[in-house]
Amino acid sequence: MMRMDVLTLFPEMFDGVFQSSILGKAREKGLVSLNAINFRDYAGNKHGTVDDTPYGGGGGMVLKPDPIFRAVEDLLGKEVEEDAAWQCPDSDERVEHGQAVPVEGMQATLQGKAPRIILMCPQGETFTQRKAEELAQEEHLIFICGHYEGYDERIREHLVTDELSIGDYVLTGGEIPAMTVIDSVTRLLPGVLGNETSAVTDSFSTGLLEYPHYTRPVEFRGWKVPDILLSGHHANIELWRRREALRRTWLRRPDLLEGLELSRDDIAWLKQLKEEMDQ
Amino acid sequence: MMRMDVLTLFPEMFDGVFQSSILGKAREKGLVSLNAINFRDYAGNKHGTVDDTPYGGGGGMVLKPDPIFRAVEDLLGKEVEEDAAWQCPDSDERVEHGQAVPVEGMQATLQGKAPRIILMCPQGETFTQRKAEELAQEEHLIFICGHYEGYDERIREHLVTDELSIGDYVLTGGEIPAMTVIDSVTRLLPGVLGNETSAVTDSFSTGLLEYPHYTRPVEFRGWKVPDILLSGHHANIELWRRREALRRTWLRRPDLLEGLELSRDDIAWLKQLKEEMDQ
Repeated sequence: MMRMDVLTLFPEMFDGVFQSSILGKAREKGLVSLNAINFRDYAGNKHGTVDDTPYGGGGGMVLKPDPIFRAVEDLLGKEVEEDAAWQCPDSDERVEHGQAVPVEGMQATLQGKAPRIILMCPQGETFTQRKAEELAQEEHLIFICGHYEGYDERIREHLVTDELSIGDYVLTGGEIPAMTVIDSVTRLLPGVLGNETSAVTDSFSTGLLEYPHYTRPVEFRGWKVPDILLSGHHANIELWRRREALRRTWLRRPDLLEGLELSRDDIAWLKQLKEEMDQ
Repeated sequence: MMRMDVLTLFPEMFDGVFQSSILGKAREKGLVSLNAINFRDYAGNKHGTVDDTPYGGGGGMVLKPDPIFRAVEDLLGKEVEEDAAWQCPDSDERVEHGQAVPVEGMQATLQGKAPRIILMCPQGETFTQRKAEELAQEEHLIFICGHYEGYDERIREHLVTDELSIGDYVLTGGEIPAMTVIDSVTRLLPGVLGNETSAVTDSFSTGLLEYPHYTRPVEFRGWKVPDILLSGHHANIELWRRREALRRTWLRRPDLLEGLELSRDDIAWLKQLKEEMDQ
């Protein structure tokens, strides 16, 4: 069973998401274990202080290394040592030009199925479906979520194996990004999605954006379903869907077309679209 | 007060997120109204059916137009008409080559402060900080969240004003993406963030990734804070921080450097980094 633990100052944020819908069902079926843990419990002081002012001055607060190291070590059941097998390289060596760089330390980690320790932060590698597929092969993921504060650099350099960002926008914390990664990884685990739910959603599985969908009624407020979909001619329907998926992808996300294997008909259709556009 | 309504089949997913931390406080202070509404209540049939099989065959289910139109109309307090002021253009005209296309219908919407009706879907415009800033100027946002199903195309074409995706990965539904957008927009509303919390997090405000942060203890498990940060020499500290932010951005996200205004010192430093790398 895949295990995912989240270290956060707001574990209650995860209640609704972990209990509902597909994640809730995956937990009930015993396919995944999802836990939100408050790292304030590891503060080691009366006041539960987990942050402090930055060295060198400036505004804002910075999360201290000690509570987060101790919370991770409690999950690992052992202390983090500098020469430990799962020890990661310095953070800037790990991500280079937006891509994760494979390094010996991390390969050892992968082979031994040691936990992946993932820092959610805007400086991280941009999360993609490919990364979701990679993480779905693991046995144990630990997510560290800061909350409108910086992380002490020693967490980045000596504790985590991955740094992830879900996109180029600023959020109040790493909690919603951790939910995003957990949701995308969980749905890839064997047995989580039935066939009935998996077919429609996979926008990225063909490499194209989805073609338009229609369901009943055949006419809604004067807007009709395209005749072709009511024709019963399956080959024509498939061709229409392929072409509409190509049209939408070309109009909205032409970057997705690069490097995609296209048929002769696909190429002729894209040429026709461009000619229509130029007129 | 900014109002944000979410139409979803899983309103309970939002409980923890809407009640905790900065979003919870913003609601308590009356700065934002956040509501999750179950559009199954608008199914209009005994069984609460909101989806059906796709015309033209194939797997998966498709969300019917009627319940979602009726739920939106209930929020608007009026019926959607084809010639209504806020009527949007066809979806593929609205997003072109990954960018939102300004069109007359939408400009009218913006001037009248009619609600923005936002479909969360993988085919949408990729959400960015710039889009968050744009949405933070609005008075009322309505989010439509599908859940592992397709949307009837008539929702896209005749109801929504925006389609948004938070990134290139597949999720089980639009709920976590809606949370993402709501969180990023709420933190931009006046009065939501105090000065003490806003300074550190804004990775994208200088256009660079953040420089490394350090806090107490000065030595943690043998790993020391860089001497420069303890020197008390503010000008040197500022220079170090600027250079480390440049280094990190150049190593991890060189795309962010394009189009950025760089000083003579910035350019000399980047040249030095490149030379070191080439050796």
